[in-house]
Amino acid sequence: MMDRDDLYDHSVRIYTSIAQKAKEYGYDKDTTGVLNHYIQAALLDTSHPFGLHGSMFVPTIASQGTEAQKAEYLPKAERYEIIGTYVQTEIGHGTFLRGLETTAVYDQVADQFVIHSPTVSSIKYWPGGLGKTTNYAVVMAQLVIDGEQHGMHAFICQLRNLDTHQPLAGIELGDINRKFGYDNMDNGYLRFNNYRIPRTNMLMRYTQVSTDGEYTRQKLPQIAYITMVQLRMLITLGCGNDLAMAATIATRYSAVRRQTTNSQGIEPQILDYQTQQMKLFPSISTAYAVIFTGLAVRNIYTEIYNSVQAEDISRLAEIHMLTSGMKAYASEVCTAMIEVCRRSCGGHGYSHASGIPKIYERCVPACTYEGENTVMYLQCARSLLKFYGKAQAGEELPGMIGFLKDSADIPVHFKSAKVFNFEFYLKAYRLNALMMLKNVANAMQKCVYKQSTDPEIAWNRSSQALVETAKAYALYLTVVLFMDHLRTDGWEPCAKAVMAEVCEFYAVNNILENSGSFLQNGVLSPEQVEAIATRRVELLAVLRPNAVSLVDAFDYPDRLLNSCLGRYDGNVYEALYEYAKSSSLNKQQVHPSFQKYIKPMRKALKSML
Amino acid sequence: MMDRDDLYDHSVRIYTSIAQKAKEYGYDKDTTGVLNHYIQAALLDTSHPFGLHGSMFVPTIASQGTEAQKAEYLPKAERYEIIGTYVQTEIGHGTFLRGLETTAVYDQVADQFVIHSPTVSSIKYWPGGLGKTTNYAVVMAQLVIDGEQHGMHAFICQLRNLDTHQPLAGIELGDINRKFGYDNMDNGYLRFNNYRIPRTNMLMRYTQVSTDGEYTRQKLPQIAYITMVQLRMLITLGCGNDLAMAATIATRYSAVRRQTTNSQGIEPQILDYQTQQMKLFPSISTAYAVIFTGLAVRNIYTEIYNSVQAEDISRLAEIHMLTSGMKAYASEVCTAMIEVCRRSCGGHGYSHASGIPKIYERCVPACTYEGENTVMYLQCARSLLKFYGKAQAGEELPGMIGFLKDSADIPVHFKSAKVFNFEFYLKAYRLNALMMLKNVANAMQKCVYKQSTDPEIAWNRSSQALVETAKAYALYLTVVLFMDHLRTDGWEPCAKAVMAEVCEFYAVNNILENSGSFLQNGVLSPEQVEAIATRRVELLAVLRPNAVSLVDAFDYPDRLLNSCLGRYDGNVYEALYEYAKSSSLNKQQVHPSFQKYIKPMRKALKSML
Repeated sequence: MMDRDDLYDHSVRIYTSIAQKAKEYGYDKDTTGVLNHYIQAALLDTSHPFGLHGSMFVPTIASQGTEAQKAEYLPKAERYEIIGTYVQTEIGHGTFLRGLETTAVYDQVADQFVIHSPTVSSIKYWPGGLGKTTNYAVVMAQLVIDGEQHGMHAFICQLRNLDTHQPLAGIELGDINRKFGYDNMDNGYLRFNNYRIPRTNMLMRYTQVSTDGEYTRQKLPQIAYITMVQLRMLITLGCGNDLAMAATIATRYSAVRRQTTNSQGIEPQILDYQTQQMKLFPSISTAYAVIFTGLAVRNIYTEIYNSVQAEDISRLAEIHMLTSGMKAYASEVCTAMIEVCRRSCGGHGYSHASGIPKIYERCVPACTYEGENTVMYLQCARSLLKFYGKAQAGEELPGMIGFLKDSADIPVHFKSAKVFNFEFYLKAYRLNALMMLKNVANAMQKCVYKQSTDPEIAWNRSSQALVETAKAYALYLTVVLFMDHLRTDGWEPCAKAVMAEVCEFYAVNNILENSGSFLQNGVLSPEQVEAIATRRVELLAVLRPNAVSLVDAFDYPDRLLNSCLGRYDGNVYEALYEYAKSSSLNKQQVHPSFQKYIKPMRKALKSML
Repeated sequence: MMDRDDLYDHSVRIYTSIAQKAKEYGYDKDTTGVLNHYIQAALLDTSHPFGLHGSMFVPTIASQGTEAQKAEYLPKAERYEIIGTYVQTEIGHGTFLRGLETTAVYDQVADQFVIHSPTVSSIKYWPGGLGKTTNYAVVMAQLVIDGEQHGMHAFICQLRNLDTHQPLAGIELGDINRKFGYDNMDNGYLRFNNYRIPRTNMLMRYTQVSTDGEYTRQKLPQIAYITMVQLRMLITLGCGNDLAMAATIATRYSAVRRQTTNSQGIEPQILDYQTQQMKLFPSISTAYAVIFTGLAVRNIYTEIYNSVQAEDISRLAEIHMLTSGMKAYASEVCTAMIEVCRRSCGGHGYSHASGIPKIYERCVPACTYEGENTVMYLQCARSLLKFYGKAQAGEELPGMIGFLKDSADIPVHFKSAKVFNFEFYLKAYRLNALMMLKNVANAMQKCVYKQSTDPEIAWNRSSQALVETAKAYALYLTVVLFMDHLRTDGWEPCAKAVMAEVCEFYAVNNILENSGSFLQNGVLSPEQVEAIATRRVELLAVLRPNAVSLVDAFDYPDRLLNSCLGRYDGNVYEALYEYAKSSSLNKQQVHPSFQKYIKPMRKALKSML
């Protein structure tokens, strides 16, 4: 184990070398040569100190900067002459953007903004790469002109001298110290002391401040959200990939590991135990579901992004809802299942030799960053309520929310159904999401109108129910988009048949995991739930022969999995033995602490006892 | 951050110094002076390299050794002349004890056992302190006499020279390298190469091998399980304490943190948000439930331990069932809720400044060690089935399983109940556990008798249902023992009133978390579940004013919480700022990697672009 200095140093070395090689050889993400694999491995590892430069700093300037700003900054950023990050959260303020305290006061005489951190709670905290790596940042601050607040705006701030890398006057910054994982990453803090930047450093594509302090705002300010939306879309896919890696490791290991002699004197592969299958098959099917959903949402995003570029923002609320709901759902569920995969490897899952703790550490912050999950679910629920209101008013709704116009009555044939198929499952999920939405909308209305309560209080009283409604909607999305994906062209028939089984397992298993809600809403009867439970047991046996192939199909090379347990060749035990022997503590047979502490303690105790 | 060598060194230094001081001053766990607090802090930290010496090595010799063995080893262990650990699991074998490959072959001529690791998969792996710290171990191995296997037995093996600490001939051992947390701990591996020990090193209180190779076994071999049972009982309490610490940190922080301006222009404490309450109040109530249950199980354990010492093992199956079910339940639920507490602190929960990641890393291995949780639930379920069979046969059953004799029919008055009280909740939990047990027992019988299936296959096909049944039973236990605890003497009336609210919240919340099962089993109607959901919302408001007091009552001093967020004085933001500034990466303004890597990369890219 290296200390944080070494880890950071190592990360910078790897990244700079890769960034250079990628330009030299012309990296192409769609081909599969060795160099590409090497670069992909590095890029998949989002935890490097330059991560925010490419994922946030450059895209924010590209989307919110004027042509002149883009021409000035983007080429420099491509050469890493300027290395940037995205600076928003403060010690005392996270998700609630309007609560940020950092101010950018316009000084008309100097034609400058004065950026200032008035309190300890206003110190910027958390941005990746901010501590030691970057020399620039896009900083979110409260714009103030002539004492009037105009809300949050983005400002380009130079932080360090480009040549010496020393912080500039008026800038105090550094690393924020240790975290749960990401030890190599210099998440930072930043305190401004009346720091001045030119007026032209405000990102002015959608809002402008003129030399005489006149503030103008594009008629479509929501357009600025699209970078955030993109990031949430990417997080969904990233979480699906992380779960796929963990599921690969755990499934392969479960085919190697044997336990408990049966009556024939054989120790079965643990993959044959139902309880093990109930850890792995939900993980495999969820990885596929989240990845297919992520790809579908990416397609919708691309469509909407193109419309937004053409200044059509009619579908912005829809993509915002989809990505906030899916980001929360994917990060919550994938993180939980990565941990299930880890524990399914028994004690060895706890060793870094398994590779799964690193995957967990990489995935779990996604529950919090780029919009804390509870807030994301609530945003999704707020949109759902709005769309539901529109549906009630007879308005047309786009694809993924069209069903809000359906009746929430359970059809008679549905209640008596005994044979289940994709259409049945889909209808059940759709009805359940609709019922939950209807119930929470009614509860809020009742609360406001009957008890003349403040809508804010009504919202808070229903907020747990709103979170659960948004989850039910996200779950419905994954089911419908998984099924849609099966209908796309290009499937080999036998692969499609196996994937349909995976899809059915996903649908069935999640009904059972949420049976309280399906039963409570009257969508399913206890008899139907019992029949579905029987079907799940059947599907476990159906999936068992293809389990290893299903994870092999994710196609992660050993060097990406980096796991003694998930090796393609199955030589698990030799690898664990080698891993142990290579421990830094084994450099000496007798650790110096024996002479330093244990012997003197013994001597002291001997004289006492 | 220190590297592993330093962390290990540090731990040894702290522990040896404390062990010495504890003897010098006469440590007393029941008083509360400063020294005791210091020692308690160290002892609470189970992750030190000497942990297994006191928790497993010494107790195993004390309970399974003969008087002569105890006289020989225990005084030396008390002086740390010998430092031991408990060596059982192998690279290829964990929970299934009979699968262990390490052999202890009796050599009658030499009057010795030959301990051997025949394969890579038989290498001992994981014991705490084994890598560098200990010089002795109790080793579990397959006893072989004249080619006949007699199953697992415990042998005292010296591993290192007591003076030089060098490994003895025939012993290969070392640290197993990095894990998820516990970096200071030298979990080890151990390979025996025909290593010889005297015959008298077998722990012979309950089984004996004579000089002429005659094997005799106590009529009550189960008696050896009591150490394991004790450890599982202690784990239950430890998990409850860990959750109490995490809940303290998150609740205090939620009273300091404010978010999202309301219509009165105030940013409320996040503790006022329903979604935040739904993270914290389940955590607080579960911490109390698990601690009270753990204390009750400790009392039952003590009773049964005393009976066992008097060779009465009639209640051994009962305590085995209680501790295996509760160990699994407590570790699973507490771990999950510690993570909920961490995420409830937003981004700052991810920083080690919060203190929660360390608590999580300490608690989560409890899901796997001393009996992997799924295996524990299945053992609990197996006992439940046996007791259920006895109940059907009209036998008397002890206290915590007496209800198995009840009818599983839902009483009419129960179905129509609209007003809920403790008796109602308790009855609901009891009926639900009973229904689940009855259903799974019937399903297994049907599977065996109607489809003439092997009982082993029937068991595997029902194993997920068995796990869920054991969980339902463990949950029932926590509810009944929480309620019992409220009936004990010595409560101040107002404290008791508040704790009754906590208890009701625990009962109500867990019905809703498991509503699928209560509805499916017909124990509750959808209308009753809805009414209970309304009651939960009411209880959130009831508990809110006492939330901070409820965690203050756990009485953890700041130095144990070790958290910027959970400070008693609430000075959260200043503490976070100081924590950031003290990062090792901040020792230099410009990290050397800037000159080493970033500048050369820029130069190279400049020539290309």
